[in-house]
Amino acid sequence: MTRIVQKYGGTSVATPGKLRLVARRVRESLRNDVEAVVVVSAMGDTTDELIALAHQVTSDPPSREMDMLLSAGETISAPLLAMALEAAGTAAVSLTGVQAGIRTSRAHRTARIVDIVPQRVLDELAAGRVVVVAGFQGVTDEMEVTTLGRGGSDTSAVALAVALGADRCEILSDVAGVHTADPRLVPDARVIPEIAYDEMLEFAAAGAVVVQPRAVEIAEAYSMAIEVRSTFDEGTGTVICRHPRMEERQKVRGIAHQNDVAKVTLLRVPDRPGVAASIFDPFGQQGINVDIIVQNLAHDGTTDVSFTIAESDLRRARMMLGAVARDVGAQGYMATADIAKVSVVGTGLRGTPGIFAKVFRTLAGAGINIEMISTGEIHLTCIIERERVGDAVRALHTAFELEKI
Amino acid sequence: MTRIVQKYGGTSVATPGKLRLVARRVRESLRNDVEAVVVVSAMGDTTDELIALAHQVTSDPPSREMDMLLSAGETISAPLLAMALEAAGTAAVSLTGVQAGIRTSRAHRTARIVDIVPQRVLDELAAGRVVVVAGFQGVTDEMEVTTLGRGGSDTSAVALAVALGADRCEILSDVAGVHTADPRLVPDARVIPEIAYDEMLEFAAAGAVVVQPRAVEIAEAYSMAIEVRSTFDEGTGTVICRHPRMEERQKVRGIAHQNDVAKVTLLRVPDRPGVAASIFDPFGQQGINVDIIVQNLAHDGTTDVSFTIAESDLRRARMMLGAVARDVGAQGYMATADIAKVSVVGTGLRGTPGIFAKVFRTLAGAGINIEMISTGEIHLTCIIERERVGDAVRALHTAFELEKI
Repeated sequence: MTRIVQKYGGTSVATPGKLRLVARRVRESLRNDVEAVVVVSAMGDTTDELIALAHQVTSDPPSREMDMLLSAGETISAPLLAMALEAAGTAAVSLTGVQAGIRTSRAHRTARIVDIVPQRVLDELAAGRVVVVAGFQGVTDEMEVTTLGRGGSDTSAVALAVALGADRCEILSDVAGVHTADPRLVPDARVIPEIAYDEMLEFAAAGAVVVQPRAVEIAEAYSMAIEVRSTFDEGTGTVICRHPRMEERQKVRGIAHQNDVAKVTLLRVPDRPGVAASIFDPFGQQGINVDIIVQNLAHDGTTDVSFTIAESDLRRARMMLGAVARDVGAQGYMATADIAKVSVVGTGLRGTPGIFAKVFRTLAGAGINIEMISTGEIHLTCIIERERVGDAVRALHTAFELEKI
Repeated sequence: MTRIVQKYGGTSVATPGKLRLVARRVRESLRNDVEAVVVVSAMGDTTDELIALAHQVTSDPPSREMDMLLSAGETISAPLLAMALEAAGTAAVSLTGVQAGIRTSRAHRTARIVDIVPQRVLDELAAGRVVVVAGFQGVTDEMEVTTLGRGGSDTSAVALAVALGADRCEILSDVAGVHTADPRLVPDARVIPEIAYDEMLEFAAAGAVVVQPRAVEIAEAYSMAIEVRSTFDEGTGTVICRHPRMEERQKVRGIAHQNDVAKVTLLRVPDRPGVAASIFDPFGQQGINVDIIVQNLAHDGTTDVSFTIAESDLRRARMMLGAVARDVGAQGYMATADIAKVSVVGTGLRGTPGIFAKVFRTLAGAGINIEMISTGEIHLTCIIERERVGDAVRALHTAFELEKI
């Protein structure tokens, strides 16, 4: 008997018709002595609609109540999928997070799974049923309903796969897998057959979130392979695992990009110990994530400090910048949103001389100016003008011959 | 400290704006050392929309999955009301049926409350919070989600009031109370200040369902008074209790009517023992409720048997009638939906000579033919032509001077 966990995203279950198609997909998976646990997200835009509803009631909804409200999304989609399976002749049962034994921390809206007590799930599998689990939700020791944060159903699925000792964990959605670049920018981008956990995490950090990073981290911790595939198209998709079979000549796995980026520069900041903390503490307190930070050598005892944030945080950041600049004694600041992030990702970057140079040469050859650079063990990120982002991704995709298998 | 349970119906919480108004109404109730438990229904037509969604997935949804699906309606409205209260400065917390300790039987979609373990509710009240409980839902000993049937939030409210030893249970909706007749038919109908449990149950059976009958039965069993009032209008409403202060000259409490009625007659049925069972068993097996049955004296060894069913069951009944008529040896059958039910209700009917005659005289005076009659201790029901129902209700309302206090 093979045990699999499948997770279907919101667009895959957006309508009654799609739910019936997903039921057919699940039934196909059951051939050859397979038993299945299916994790579902809320239908379509349900979660966003519930959030909007809460904001019509109050501008500041308590997180504890938001979690109860948002849990309703998956409490709707899960029984509907179970009904679709039953209607097609497959015994099925839907379970809420609490029924599936998904115990979490008390951090409402960003709860972490601390344990899964899967007895009920195991009992239902033993009774020959497909178990449809409401994703995204869990329960604390005090029986308080929690949610796992944006994309949390991926985490539900991987954690269940680990707890159940599943042979396979499949994440099915409207994307065919992890691509060498965004296919909307690069027509000959291809699906990467295998990718390592840490590469996948870098892709996500670089803007290509195909699977929620926390889900990848759990999968990595327990060596659970994740298969990313399209719900409705054929195709093998991408396997996220520890040691992909190395394609030796492939030093770079793919090109990621992100447009939701803004750049802030504090001008001529006096260069003294503690100044960085003075700059970034206030942003942390406001819940604004700072991504890339660049600080160059000081001249005349001052230095320019640049950093990037999400464009969606720019309005709030602007409200703070005057005070921050004053506090650290900067001469002024600039803030702009006409930039984008382009990243080259792959374990092949490790210890392969010349790759960084090739990136810079390629962008220069396309006449694209690099405003900021950030490097890591398996990524190189450049901040460029937003209107050149398509050109940059295409040039790099070609330069590294990513269209070739 | 006075402890109250308030229940708000679906139309009262249909929009974010109405939720804010309900929050204000709850806050007004909190004056004078009151602590409150608030039971909510699903917003507006949510329950019907969820049922429709299920039927788009399958024509025959399993009850167990329907309950999980339908529970989402109140799992949405309850936290939204808690948010509205918090936003207005009142500490509040929402609880699901399971969190509120509402334990039920295993009969999905028509579960009965078997016990309430209200510890969490009591803890939250002690902490100074308004407790908003998702109505309509409960949980079995196996932690399966159940629902209490149409109007089940009334039952949730009354059962919670009993379990919590509440001083008062209020049912708030878009009606001002129990009326002497439907105000849409009778402009000078007035709200009845007090009514006995058994009268209320007769009103419901006669078509005027203001509070779910099961809720009234529980209230009666535990002598919990129910106050029925409008959510948004001022006014004292109706108190449902054991012994209303008797208004002596008032022998009749009100006139109820119902249009969702159809009449079936089996013609010239051979009059022998067991024939009634042969007629009505098949309807029971199909879940078709038979309301009024009239069978007259036999002539020539045969008799006509007439009965009423809900008009919504007529299509299914027609499919069975040919076979039933054949089985019992009837000469034929008739089925029609152009009838209505008019009932005179009140404990005053008990042992008051002349009331029945007054009803018949009044209808005759209005030129209305009575097709069937059914009587009980505190009701008299006549089946008449549907197009005369307004005339009948008005004539009876005037005859018994119900417009007068």
